[in-house]
Amino acid sequence: MKLNREQLIASVKEQMPEKRWLHTLGVMETSIQLAERFGSDPVKAELAAILHDVCKYWRVDEQARIIRENSLPQDLLDYDKELWHAHAGAWVARTEYGVDDEEVLDAIRYHTSGRERMTLLDKVVCLADYMEPGRDYPGVHMIREIAEHNLERALLAGFDGTIRLLLDRGKRIYPLTVLARNGLVVELNELMETNEQ
Amino acid sequence: MKLNREQLIASVKEQMPEKRWLHTLGVMETSIQLAERFGSDPVKAELAAILHDVCKYWRVDEQARIIRENSLPQDLLDYDKELWHAHAGAWVARTEYGVDDEEVLDAIRYHTSGRERMTLLDKVVCLADYMEPGRDYPGVHMIREIAEHNLERALLAGFDGTIRLLLDRGKRIYPLTVLARNGLVVELNELMETNEQ
Repeated sequence: MKLNREQLIASVKEQMPEKRWLHTLGVMETSIQLAERFGSDPVKAELAAILHDVCKYWRVDEQARIIRENSLPQDLLDYDKELWHAHAGAWVARTEYGVDDEEVLDAIRYHTSGRERMTLLDKVVCLADYMEPGRDYPGVHMIREIAEHNLERALLAGFDGTIRLLLDRGKRIYPLTVLARNGLVVELNELMETNEQ
Repeated sequence: MKLNREQLIASVKEQMPEKRWLHTLGVMETSIQLAERFGSDPVKAELAAILHDVCKYWRVDEQARIIRENSLPQDLLDYDKELWHAHAGAWVARTEYGVDDEEVLDAIRYHTSGRERMTLLDKVVCLADYMEPGRDYPGVHMIREIAEHNLERALLAGFDGTIRLLLDRGKRIYPLTVLARNGLVVELNELMETNEQ
């Protein structure tokens, strides 16, 4: 099913409670801003943002079924349910909304966990999800400030906050998130070395 | 080369500065105590403790050479040098000191990083390294207190402290350490469920 932008928005909006749609609107707006600020594609960024939570408010057993039956990473099912909707969502975006841009699908797929080598688009959508205007948690102001000038550093602050929260709560940490923040540490160090030369 | 206990101690002592040998003495003493407290083998625990830092004060390029030339995990070389001596040390314990007990070798090998499914002996030596009497860092008293009654919970506090320190310092986190603490979280949850039944 190929929809135009307005039809797509109308359809995705129906998949979630009104209040949560406001979050998606915030991620759309922030993704476009970040894409323009850091040289990513704002059209792709908005498309990924529209769809990033498409199945987040579907029943969790339906999300689990999508992961089980379509050979998505099975280890997700051992971790927090919060991680499921991102991979299931990329599958829905492809099969039910006809999205075939792999860059956009990856940005949806990794918007919660991150991954080892994140593309510019992955980073934009993931960071937008951490800092859209509706977000309110300790540290979000700092992330927004850093995001004024440094995409990687802001996203690293986001991931580090998630990891600290999981440590505080005695919950498991999804290993890919650690690889994602390790990757950002390496990128930032390399950037500093280049600037020092 | 098979040495008796006194010869082994004399030889390992020569591999490090006097001050650092005191740390090994502390780990030996604490490993025996923890092994007795939690039902591990104190003789194996002491042997692993004697050898746990055997090559920590060798030149780092020598530690790297051992890892490179003996098919030890190559990804170690991408991470903090602090991790190298544990794997290199297990190799030295086997090849230079004739230790052939795989349980003891594993306890040496994983005493810094931990691993996903830690044996009782792994946990004992790793925790002893975190809390031997010579250790002095914020949180060590809490770890010692927890270790009075709960091995897994004390070790989890140790790993979580290490992860927080790496986050604070903007350094990479070795993924195996995250798998180790995730494994302890699962064990502790399962134990709670069993106790509730």
